[in-house]
Amino acid sequence: MRIGILGTGHVGRALAAGWARAGHDIVLGSRRPEDTELLTELKELLEAGVRVGDPATATAHAEVLVNATPGAASIPLLESVGAHALEGKVLLDVAVGFQEDHTLTHPLVSLGEEIQQAFPRTPVVKTLCTVDSVVMVAPQSLEGPSTIFLSGDDADAKRTVAGLLTDLGWPQESLLDLGGIGTARGQEHFALLFIGIALATDSFTFGIRVVPRAGA
Amino acid sequence: MRIGILGTGHVGRALAAGWARAGHDIVLGSRRPEDTELLTELKELLEAGVRVGDPATATAHAEVLVNATPGAASIPLLESVGAHALEGKVLLDVAVGFQEDHTLTHPLVSLGEEIQQAFPRTPVVKTLCTVDSVVMVAPQSLEGPSTIFLSGDDADAKRTVAGLLTDLGWPQESLLDLGGIGTARGQEHFALLFIGIALATDSFTFGIRVVPRAGA
Repeated sequence: MRIGILGTGHVGRALAAGWARAGHDIVLGSRRPEDTELLTELKELLEAGVRVGDPATATAHAEVLVNATPGAASIPLLESVGAHALEGKVLLDVAVGFQEDHTLTHPLVSLGEEIQQAFPRTPVVKTLCTVDSVVMVAPQSLEGPSTIFLSGDDADAKRTVAGLLTDLGWPQESLLDLGGIGTARGQEHFALLFIGIALATDSFTFGIRVVPRAGA
Repeated sequence: MRIGILGTGHVGRALAAGWARAGHDIVLGSRRPEDTELLTELKELLEAGVRVGDPATATAHAEVLVNATPGAASIPLLESVGAHALEGKVLLDVAVGFQEDHTLTHPLVSLGEEIQQAFPRTPVVKTLCTVDSVVMVAPQSLEGPSTIFLSGDDADAKRTVAGLLTDLGWPQESLLDLGGIGTARGQEHFALLFIGIALATDSFTFGIRVVPRAGA
């Protein structure tokens, strides 16, 4: 599958590596795609066949476009790419507007919902935002099964994203479809408990598992 | 231990039954403690030795006072009891200001923090607010181990509350101390993901487990 990834931080790089391993065709989108320092940092990814371009190039390449930019920057960046360029592509949104003071940029709603409202012709699927970049692409690194959530209004787009999650190693039984994009709020606001758990356990490498009733 | 429980809804009743089974001495606090209908509903609890009084009576009885009132009503009720009456008691706060429209009454902070600020001489411990009333008192009803969180500034108060959690059946290894009362925010805001999981799985009877890195 042709995947574009906006954002070249930890998350964008981890996802690029994970999906390149699974055989997908990836362009990373950066606002400075010819920056020597960036290209040096991305050396391993480039050797694995990942390409780097500007956000418009990554978008044009993509059947699935991944938003892995900082939450506060996501909508302005997507607006600079333009609604027309995004039309008909699946937008896999992993961003959370979590700020250094441990508050959310979207305390009353969610970034996922706002992106969907801003780009109604681009089906948005929120996922992967309840784990850190290490766990995103290596769920088997955890002690046992954990749960990963999906939120989105478009069933076909969610099926496509579910396939990409299994390509990262998430077994089908780990995926929990929460419903429409409105449910992205729950995933994003979990960031507050996530940081609490991370600080208390001194590790960002964990997942959460929904534990059902015995015999359910 | 002498426990007072403010609130006679599902949560207050479940906790009263759970701690009565463990041998604690319990007074349920209600604003209408002589209401015939209420007393009929509480028949089994009364037979188990639980008493009913007004909020001031429940508070006066308590070494540990449990706030199991609706989140939006909690601070006004505690204010009516008065800071002096609450002084020196451990306040075990399980309430979440989660409204019918699925928004929080305290979207930017947490009820736990606000209670602690309002009553600085009463150590507040937030816990049990990430599971429903069935799971609170029957963690063994779940398919496997899950995690229960504690937030509070006072270490002694947290030890007392941890003991009461183990009396409800939560094993020591299920308890995760998140730190100060500021971390109550994470527990309370989890309500948004909680309702998403509940609606998606058609069950409120579930827990979440923090799944650490393998070998950690």
